Amino acid sequence: MGNTAASMLDDIFAYIDARSENYIRRLIDYARHPAISAQNRGIAEVSGMLVDMLAGLGMVAEAVPTAGHPMVLARYEAGPEMPTILLYGHYDVQPPEPLELWKSPPFEPTIRDGRIWGRGLGDNKGQHFAQILAIEAHLVVSGRLPCNVILLLEGEEEIGSPHIADFVRTHADRLRADLVVTADGGRHQSGLPLILYGVRGVFSFELRARTGSRDAHSGNYGGVMPNAVWKLVHLLASMKTPAGEITIAGLADPVRAATATERAAIARLPDDMPAYMKEAGLTELDAPRDRPLFDRLMFHPTLTINGLHGGYGGPGSKTVLPSEAVAKCDIRLVEAMTVEQVRTCVAEHVKKFAPDVEFVPQGGMQPSRTSMDSPWRAVLREAVVQAQGIEPLELPSRDYSRAHFL
Amino acid sequence: MGNTAASMLDDIFAYIDARSENYIRRLIDYARHPAISAQNRGIAEVSGMLVDMLAGLGMVAEAVPTAGHPMVLARYEAGPEMPTILLYGHYDVQPPEPLELWKSPPFEPTIRDGRIWGRGLGDNKGQHFAQILAIEAHLVVSGRLPCNVILLLEGEEEIGSPHIADFVRTHADRLRADLVVTADGGRHQSGLPLILYGVRGVFSFELRARTGSRDAHSGNYGGVMPNAVWKLVHLLASMKTPAGEITIAGLADPVRAATATERAAIARLPDDMPAYMKEAGLTELDAPRDRPLFDRLMFHPTLTINGLHGGYGGPGSKTVLPSEAVAKCDIRLVEAMTVEQVRTCVAEHVKKFAPDVEFVPQGGMQPSRTSMDSPWRAVLREAVVQAQGIEPLELPSRDYSRAHFL
Repeated sequence: MGNTAASMLDDIFAYIDARSENYIRRLIDYARHPAISAQNRGIAEVSGMLVDMLAGLGMVAEAVPTAGHPMVLARYEAGPEMPTILLYGHYDVQPPEPLELWKSPPFEPTIRDGRIWGRGLGDNKGQHFAQILAIEAHLVVSGRLPCNVILLLEGEEEIGSPHIADFVRTHADRLRADLVVTADGGRHQSGLPLILYGVRGVFSFELRARTGSRDAHSGNYGGVMPNAVWKLVHLLASMKTPAGEITIAGLADPVRAATATERAAIARLPDDMPAYMKEAGLTELDAPRDRPLFDRLMFHPTLTINGLHGGYGGPGSKTVLPSEAVAKCDIRLVEAMTVEQVRTCVAEHVKKFAPDVEFVPQGGMQPSRTSMDSPWRAVLREAVVQAQGIEPLELPSRDYSRAHFL
Repeated sequence: MGNTAASMLDDIFAYIDARSENYIRRLIDYARHPAISAQNRGIAEVSGMLVDMLAGLGMVAEAVPTAGHPMVLARYEAGPEMPTILLYGHYDVQPPEPLELWKSPPFEPTIRDGRIWGRGLGDNKGQHFAQILAIEAHLVVSGRLPCNVILLLEGEEEIGSPHIADFVRTHADRLRADLVVTADGGRHQSGLPLILYGVRGVFSFELRARTGSRDAHSGNYGGVMPNAVWKLVHLLASMKTPAGEITIAGLADPVRAATATERAAIARLPDDMPAYMKEAGLTELDAPRDRPLFDRLMFHPTLTINGLHGGYGGPGSKTVLPSEAVAKCDIRLVEAMTVEQVRTCVAEHVKKFAPDVEFVPQGGMQPSRTSMDSPWRAVLREAVVQAQGIEPLELPSRDYSRAHFL
C-alpha cells in the first residue's frame, strides 16, 4: 500500500472515529425499522430507505423486483479498468416473537453492557450498515472509492433465499465481480475475527426398503421373509466401514488435497474440541480415529445417517419381522465434489448392492471453496488488520465452531 | 395292537358314535360356562365343574391352588408298572370383547355350517373335553384304561401361564410321565391332522447406543461426533452377513443336525410357500437363498431385528447427527441351543465389537424338540389314524403355517 493510500486511510479512520456516536445513533435508527420477510412486514419501507441512502452517496441504486421481496442493488463506478467488489448482505430480519423473552423491545435498540440489543443488529443490519458507512466516509474524505463496488442487499435471506438463484442468473451482467464478500456471520468463538473461504455442500437422500406387503411374526416367518431393517443395515454397512472409510465408489474421487496455504491457516486455529467434547458428553471422536480434527471438517466428505426407523419402537419387546424401513442420510461435500456427481455415485452403489431398495434423492447444495492462494487474500487480511488491529483467523472451510453462531 | 385291543377299540368307537349328539350337547353346555382368566371371572365355577366331572369318572381330582388361578389336576391309576400319559389343556378362555363382532353370543354356542361357534370351543375346551369324553367312553366300555393318565388343565394359559413353571417344579412328582400330549393347536393348513414334536425357543434383547448427551448438526459435527445409528448399523452388520450367516461366535454350536426320521417327515410336508409369498407380497425368501424352506424354520437359529430407531423420522430431511439409537432383536433358538448360552454369546459379541453399546437381555424361552425316534411316535400316529382315519403330518418343529391358527 502506497504512502498516499495509507495516509488517506488514516484520514478516513480519523473521520470515522470522530463520528462514532453519530454512526451508532444512525445504526439504531435503521434498526428501528423492521423488515420481517416471514411476515411480509416493512419490506417496502426498509428497501426504500436503503435505496434513498445509497443514491444519496452517489451510487446507482434501485430496489429490483423479484417474485418475492425486492433486492436492493447499488453500484459505485470507479472505472472499467478498476477491480469490482461485490458486498452481499440482507435487510430482512427474523420475526421477534416470543416478545416476552426480550429484556428491551426488539425494535427499540438499547445499549447494555457495551452492546446494542435489538432485532437484526447482529444479523445482518450491523454488518452491512457498517459497510455503507465506510463507503460514505471514504467518499467524503477522499472524494472517490478505489474500486467499483456493488452492494446487494437481499430481502428474503431469513426465509431461505428462495429467489436469489433466479436473480443472479437473470442479472449476471450487473453482478460480475472480482471478489464477493459476505459479511453475515460472527467472530470465531475464540473472539478473533474470521475469514471463511468456503463451506461444505450437502446432498440428502432417503433409502426405503420394503420386503413384503405387511409385517410378519418372527416366530412364524423368521428365516423365511426378508427383513426390511436388515436390508438397510447391510446396505448402509456397505457404504462406510466401521473404521470410517466411505466405500461408495467414486464418491471422494474429486476431492482436492489441502494446499500448503490451507495447512498453514489450519495450524493457526485453536483446538477447543476437548472443551466441546466435555460439554457434549463425547468420549471419543468419530472414526477414523487418526484423522486430524480440522481435516474431518474441511477435507473429507461425511456420510451421516440422520435417522433410521423400522419395526417396533415401543416399550418392551415385540416379535415382529418388519416389512418396511426408511433411512434418511446426508453427505457433506467438500471441493471439488458436486451434488450431481455424488447423487450418481450413491445411486450406482444402491443399484449394485441392494437393487430392491428405493433410492430417493432429495435436496442438495454445492460446496464452495475460494483459493487461499488468491491475490485477494492479502487485501482482505490487510483490511481486517487495518480496521480491527488484529490478524484474523482463516478457515479454508467452515468448522464446528460456527455452530455457536448460527 | 392285539386283536382283543382292536376289538375293544371298535366297541369304544361304536359307543362314541352312538352318543355323538349327547357329546355335542354336553360340550355346548360346558362352553356356556366362561372362565375368563384376564377378567378373573368364572374360574372357581369351571374348575369346580371339571373336578366334579373327573372325580365322577373315578379319577383322583382336585383344583390345586397356585399364586393365581387353580390348576385342575386329575389322575387315573392303572398300575405302577404301566406307562403314564399326561394330557395338558387349559380351561380358561380369552375375553369375548368386542361383543358386536360375534354373529351369535360367545357363551351361547351355536351350530352353523357344521361348526360350533362360541368362545373357547377351538381354544381349548373342544380339545380337552373330547379327551375327557374319550376317557369316559373307554372306562364305560372296558372298565379300565390301559395306562396311567394325568390330566392337567390350566386356568391361566390365556394370560401367559405365569405360574405353571412354579407349579411344575413344586409338583414334579405328581406330574412325572412317559409322554406329554398337548392338544392346543389346530390342524395343518392343508387340512391334515398334525403332530408337532417341538417349537423354537426365543431370546429377546435390546442394543442401546449413546454417543453424546444430545443430538448435533451434521454440518457442524459430521465427521467429528460419533453417530449412534452408525454404531448400531456396524454392530448389527457384524452379527449377520448379507448372505444370511449369523457370525456371533458360538451361537449355533449346539445345533443338532436333522435326523433321517425328521428329514423323512419334512419330505411329506406340502410346500405352500409360493402361495404365502404371493399373499404377503414377497419377491424372494430371506438369505441364505440356497437353504431349503423347512430347514429355515426348524434347524437354524434366526436373528431378527424387530425394530431399529434413531434420529429423525418425520417428513422431508433434517440434518441431524443422532446421539442415541435403540435396536430390538430376537433370536429364535433351535435344539439344543439354550437361552443362557445364547445370552452369553451375544453379550460377548457386543463386548468385543462395540463395548460402548449397552446390551440389555430381555425375556427368553427354551426351545424344545421331542425325538421322532421315540417309541411313542408310533403310538401317537396310530391313535390319530384310528380316530380320524388319516395319516397325520409330522413337524419336527413348528413352521410358518401355524401362523394361520394362533
